[in-house]
Amino acid sequence: MNICNLLDIQLPLIQAPMAGVQGSALAIAVSNAGGLGSLPCAMLTAETLRSELDAIRAGTTKPFNVNFFCHTAPAICSTTEMAWRETLRPYYKELGIDPQTIAAGTERTPFNGRVADILEVFRPSVVSFHFGLPTPELLKRVKDFGAKVLSSATTVEEAVWLEIHGADAIIAQGLEAGGHRGMFLTDDLTTQMGTFALLPQIISRVQVPVIAAGGIADARGISAAMALGASGVQMGTAYLLAHEATTSSVHRQALKSSSATHTALTNLFSGRPARGIVNRVMQELGPMSVKAPAFPLASTAIAPLRAKAEAAASGEFSPLWAGQNTSGCVEASAAEITRALSQGFKAY
Amino acid sequence: MNICNLLDIQLPLIQAPMAGVQGSALAIAVSNAGGLGSLPCAMLTAETLRSELDAIRAGTTKPFNVNFFCHTAPAICSTTEMAWRETLRPYYKELGIDPQTIAAGTERTPFNGRVADILEVFRPSVVSFHFGLPTPELLKRVKDFGAKVLSSATTVEEAVWLEIHGADAIIAQGLEAGGHRGMFLTDDLTTQMGTFALLPQIISRVQVPVIAAGGIADARGISAAMALGASGVQMGTAYLLAHEATTSSVHRQALKSSSATHTALTNLFSGRPARGIVNRVMQELGPMSVKAPAFPLASTAIAPLRAKAEAAASGEFSPLWAGQNTSGCVEASAAEITRALSQGFKAY
Repeated sequence: MNICNLLDIQLPLIQAPMAGVQGSALAIAVSNAGGLGSLPCAMLTAETLRSELDAIRAGTTKPFNVNFFCHTAPAICSTTEMAWRETLRPYYKELGIDPQTIAAGTERTPFNGRVADILEVFRPSVVSFHFGLPTPELLKRVKDFGAKVLSSATTVEEAVWLEIHGADAIIAQGLEAGGHRGMFLTDDLTTQMGTFALLPQIISRVQVPVIAAGGIADARGISAAMALGASGVQMGTAYLLAHEATTSSVHRQALKSSSATHTALTNLFSGRPARGIVNRVMQELGPMSVKAPAFPLASTAIAPLRAKAEAAASGEFSPLWAGQNTSGCVEASAAEITRALSQGFKAY
Repeated sequence: MNICNLLDIQLPLIQAPMAGVQGSALAIAVSNAGGLGSLPCAMLTAETLRSELDAIRAGTTKPFNVNFFCHTAPAICSTTEMAWRETLRPYYKELGIDPQTIAAGTERTPFNGRVADILEVFRPSVVSFHFGLPTPELLKRVKDFGAKVLSSATTVEEAVWLEIHGADAIIAQGLEAGGHRGMFLTDDLTTQMGTFALLPQIISRVQVPVIAAGGIADARGISAAMALGASGVQMGTAYLLAHEATTSSVHRQALKSSSATHTALTNLFSGRPARGIVNRVMQELGPMSVKAPAFPLASTAIAPLRAKAEAAASGEFSPLWAGQNTSGCVEASAAEITRALSQGFKAY
């Protein structure tokens, strides 16, 4: 059983929502090509969310997915923040940044009532969450307007939890996946499994369809995931060089270079472990630092370094999110990429 | 192209050599069932190596594999050893062990000329290595008696290196795999990839056949690996509960319990990262400790704790090697296990 009926799509292929490197254009293109396009909404203001949803409605009549984070917003701790800025001080000095002038960080507000108000107007047919699920009241609002709900599990326990709490399908996010680990019942990285191990173990424990994510780069990878029993796949890295993605030029350059073969989980850019291409700041501070404030607070102090470095065409302070398998990254339209990937479903 | 012709076997399935949990009996059973049985030789004395090879010759006429480590033996550093024993001191006290009485550790001698002397008599048709390859002179001796040579790669760079240095086939050891990581060009754990990412990237860079390992638990996993382009698979965890394995009772018990779902890479038991089921000593010291002496020296000081605990039916100080996917572990004969797995090759 694949997810085509559940989500009313032609190909059981979800384009992974990727905050910071894509907007409505990529989602529209993938949905129009028969997959499920996704709009990453975690960093959008209410205004931008509305305009992006307007754009999608204008661009496609096909189903699409909107994605939100549902972490618990942490309290700001000035001691932690000061220690973090102290850790970064040599870089401020090197890049000529006055730490006194650092602006408030990009907002990453968890899914909330105001967002639900907006969604109730647009009624997207699929809503996906990262870091668990919102409160039962909020989840009910989403289900009440008819959306199917997806969320990511990084362990068998998380998958079981998601099924119990109402997910209509579960994304098994293998350790190979790029971007933020969706982990929400543990912060122990040793619990994180590769797709080969995670996917079948989740499938055997839940009744809802399971979507494979992590390390799938091409049609062959899709066939493998389906052979393991997946009901569909979610792929992000394969779309990073798509014409419709807004991936920055330093990010594109890194993806096309040999450095793309070495990624690591890092908490330096947001406070939560996320997989990106290893760059200077990850090498020098170590990819996982106890100094980084809780998600999403770590981003505030590192943002000006990123901006200054990127202005000089350097990605050494940027989150260069990517999965462990960038071999499928091609510069092409999302429709062409989706068409090539569709070959992977032939036998299924 | 699969490895059946190269290795003269019926099924492109290698039983992973697993030092400490199996001897000739398992190797014989798997070879007789059409796969390639393996004898782990890293911890055998010359005498035992000869008697085990005698046993295999008596038990099967089929090809089999003998496996050796080829690490560089480290110098013993008394400061490091003392610091390690100091770390373990609370456990010595708790278990009533006098650290003054600790015997020399189990030998893990790298492949050497004396071993080659023995192999030249028995002429096994396949010889596999872990941690790279032996010196060109030693490798030539192995090739000169007609053996095909295998070794494990944990990165694309290691695969390329192995091909250049004479491996006839390469085992792509994904991060999910149980036991020792075969890494030999790096000790940076962030370079280690899941099978979904590692396998296809190695395949695209080398000409020799690539064998998938890590996270493959059953026929479905085999199909997936073959779909990704593997020329065969190597599986160890699936044989841990086989009747012919010598897996200890605490190890079997752990594999059959829910704790088997949580493994981690640990250097506590040998000095090199190896994947095992998380137990008390891994939890309390952290699975990776900077205090552990270089491979294989860490094992000496922890061995008496293991022995004492196991005598009381506890595996809390034992290396409970296992991969991240223990869902395929069944108590059956190796022939039955192999027969069930053979279904995974049907389409290939």
